[in-house]
Amino acid sequence: MNELRVNHDKLRAFGMDVLGQLEVPEKKAEICIEAYLFGSLRGLDTHGLFFLLPRMVREIRAGLISPAADVSIIKRHPSALLVDAQFGLGPVSAFQSMNEAIKLCRQTGMGGVSTFNCNHFGAASFYGSQAVKEDFVGMTFGNATPRVAPYGGREGVHGTNPMCFVIPAGKYPSLVVDIATSASSAGKISEIQKKGGTIPEGWALDPEGRPTTDPQKALEGILLPMAGHKGYGLALVVDALTGALAGSYVGKKVPPLNDLTTPYGCSSFMLAMDPECFAGIGTFKAKIDQLIEDCITCPPMEGFRRVFYPGEMESEEEAQRKEKGIPVSEGVVRGFLKGLKDHGLKVRDTDLL
Amino acid sequence: MNELRVNHDKLRAFGMDVLGQLEVPEKKAEICIEAYLFGSLRGLDTHGLFFLLPRMVREIRAGLISPAADVSIIKRHPSALLVDAQFGLGPVSAFQSMNEAIKLCRQTGMGGVSTFNCNHFGAASFYGSQAVKEDFVGMTFGNATPRVAPYGGREGVHGTNPMCFVIPAGKYPSLVVDIATSASSAGKISEIQKKGGTIPEGWALDPEGRPTTDPQKALEGILLPMAGHKGYGLALVVDALTGALAGSYVGKKVPPLNDLTTPYGCSSFMLAMDPECFAGIGTFKAKIDQLIEDCITCPPMEGFRRVFYPGEMESEEEAQRKEKGIPVSEGVVRGFLKGLKDHGLKVRDTDLL
Repeated sequence: MNELRVNHDKLRAFGMDVLGQLEVPEKKAEICIEAYLFGSLRGLDTHGLFFLLPRMVREIRAGLISPAADVSIIKRHPSALLVDAQFGLGPVSAFQSMNEAIKLCRQTGMGGVSTFNCNHFGAASFYGSQAVKEDFVGMTFGNATPRVAPYGGREGVHGTNPMCFVIPAGKYPSLVVDIATSASSAGKISEIQKKGGTIPEGWALDPEGRPTTDPQKALEGILLPMAGHKGYGLALVVDALTGALAGSYVGKKVPPLNDLTTPYGCSSFMLAMDPECFAGIGTFKAKIDQLIEDCITCPPMEGFRRVFYPGEMESEEEAQRKEKGIPVSEGVVRGFLKGLKDHGLKVRDTDLL
Repeated sequence: MNELRVNHDKLRAFGMDVLGQLEVPEKKAEICIEAYLFGSLRGLDTHGLFFLLPRMVREIRAGLISPAADVSIIKRHPSALLVDAQFGLGPVSAFQSMNEAIKLCRQTGMGGVSTFNCNHFGAASFYGSQAVKEDFVGMTFGNATPRVAPYGGREGVHGTNPMCFVIPAGKYPSLVVDIATSASSAGKISEIQKKGGTIPEGWALDPEGRPTTDPQKALEGILLPMAGHKGYGLALVVDALTGALAGSYVGKKVPPLNDLTTPYGCSSFMLAMDPECFAGIGTFKAKIDQLIEDCITCPPMEGFRRVFYPGEMESEEEAQRKEKGIPVSEGVVRGFLKGLKDHGLKVRDTDLL
């Protein structure tokens, strides 16, 4: 199958047109498309537009998402806010929640916003990056459908529960740590399956609860936490900071992501911190630069060409994809277009092919 | 060698006597001994009294620790505080820093305290537990001497950089996640070496930068991050939240822990959050209870008896050790006593043997 390169401006216009046809308010559509393009440009393809826009269309058509909803503030303290996302668009409630965290942070040095009744928000680092634009540290946590076994267990108890930290540097693009607390994700395993490969040990159990390297059995079975008991612990911390703090679903109670009969209802926690309120933003950035230099000048171990700092490859990818287009197979684009047409949307193959 | 059981009250009195001889103020000595006993009782032996008290004695004798120092507040914002530990006793500055975080949290819902010029504070979860006594969530981060290679690298760039989260539950003892971001620690590898075992792959590189399962070569070489690039990323986050936020040492610049010619000077970050400012502490605890129950009722995978929740084994160990004493080999106790005598302290073998 041909590999295409799709220009990101073209893809943005395409996405805006699709959400326009679904009567998503323009400002909100912009947030969604920017969040999805952020994933597509930075090589986070399972959190990119081709992967997530069809899901959003499906959920809007099924009436599970309220495209015009804003977050509603339930409880307010100087550095803490509880908000209801009211089943609005995932990226919109995440964006608005981080905005509220930033506002609190400007007043007190720290702001934490707990949000429930959410939909899937795409790449967590998009929201952390909002905080970095203010010279703040941004953190994002999200819980998810239980597809990961606890350490030593064989059934799904918690989600892939991502934790994300975006940290401003001086001379370098931000340090970005955006990870699932599971060893892998269903999206990544599907990609390997499509290519006919096997998965590493420690990623998943088959439906009988036995370790497997077969991606098909893994997808029917259950994911495992990263780093054994450590990833398991961190996944529970994410559930605590999101669903528990918000008084909403945690663990096995988080609804299924792919069920079109009920709204999703995951939770998120956004945290913004102002380095200026500690030793100062100038000092902070200089220290982060030194840390980055310590990493990228470290001699590589055998089998590695060099050491990258977290976020470096994604930021190089972004520059390259902005210039050369987003790589995607023709088959994916054709399937994407067909899916949208099946939902009654007016899109032309020539828009992207 | 005989295995002894040392009563914790006896050990507390012994430790207080030792620190008294070193003219550590009584209140400060109490904090140190409680922090170390917390490690000894909960099975965190590399952060227990037998392991850490000799280090503290050595450092006080070398003039690297100022036993009477309190933390000094450098900068204050409603939810953010920068403090100088002034090379006081590690557990004392950590305890005082968490106390300050708790005070901020009472006012605003969140409190973050960044502390520099610190010494080793022992088990991070001791300080998170302080916050839980107030029904807050407590988090502790600490940076450390660079003994861990970045992902793909072969030299030490960051420390074992622990992250710790202590989360109040309702019916159950707290959920405690207290982990190094490295795959293992020098302490754990030493223990395995003493028993004549080998270490798992992925823990360390030998001095030539090659993967090793030989504990001796690992101790001469370099540790590896947990979960590859994920643990590497989290370790840098810890350096950012501690040394960078405090305007102090990060990465390769963090001084060597075991060098008795210079003070240590690591940094910490303490964060307290009040669930009452979000959906409420009652709801929060009920959700954590549900999460714990989801875990402990999960059917085990092959090779496991049952699933434990994070902190459960430590809290069972604590109850058992309080009743039956702290297990320790006679050789360790004799070495411990001899070390103290070598520093001119008046201790008798019959105090513990």
